[in-house]
Amino acid sequence: MASQYADASDKNPDIKESHDLIASDRVEGTKVYSLRGEHIGHIERVLLEKRSGKVSYAVLAFGGFMGMGHEHYPLPWSKLDYDEDLNGYSVDVNKEQLEGAPKYHDDDDFIWTPERGRQVYDYYGIAPYWV
Amino acid sequence: MASQYADASDKNPDIKESHDLIASDRVEGTKVYSLRGEHIGHIERVLLEKRSGKVSYAVLAFGGFMGMGHEHYPLPWSKLDYDEDLNGYSVDVNKEQLEGAPKYHDDDDFIWTPERGRQVYDYYGIAPYWV
Repeated sequence: MASQYADASDKNPDIKESHDLIASDRVEGTKVYSLRGEHIGHIERVLLEKRSGKVSYAVLAFGGFMGMGHEHYPLPWSKLDYDEDLNGYSVDVNKEQLEGAPKYHDDDDFIWTPERGRQVYDYYGIAPYWV
Repeated sequence: MASQYADASDKNPDIKESHDLIASDRVEGTKVYSLRGEHIGHIERVLLEKRSGKVSYAVLAFGGFMGMGHEHYPLPWSKLDYDEDLNGYSVDVNKEQLEGAPKYHDDDDFIWTPERGRQVYDYYGIAPYWV
């Protein structure tokens, strides 16, 4: 299981990852793949609950062209499964499923409410963590 | 209470903050001040528990000179109190207290264990969230 500790042992001066923990700035920018191995997009950031310090969702950038016009797809944190071979997250969702997934546009203000959150978690078949 | 929603209403294309949520990339780089208003340092990143999606700690960069040689101080998330007037986090710790606080150096590998985590939370008088 030495590979689990590979990131922690590479002497990166700024710790980014250990067996149980991962740094926010390592999550950001990480590529996302479907189970079929399609490159879907990348994680832009995670949104944290100010009070609890819990990840509310991770934002997947998907669509658009040459980095322009992509849309933002909130994903439950538990959907992200890091795959060392891919060097990215593997999620069990494909591009067709994403077409119908909850998203927001660049021009929108996305205000997270329990109802919108429930839509996201329902869509991906994940029990909301806040109930 | 309109000011609570100021960030959400500024039409930032990439949502970074709402009343209850804050984006990881907005936390990163945010300045940290003591209750006396001293500029202590800035938050470098947050470390997330891979499994639970919970913030294990925020990393405060403190010390050094001109951005060189600073050290890394793990802080419990709940120590960070955002102050709109300061445009940064206010924490009830001063530079003297930080001198004795748990930290890690650039050259270290910081492996988070329950014991090390407990030292951090104990130092700041915060109950560990994982017990």
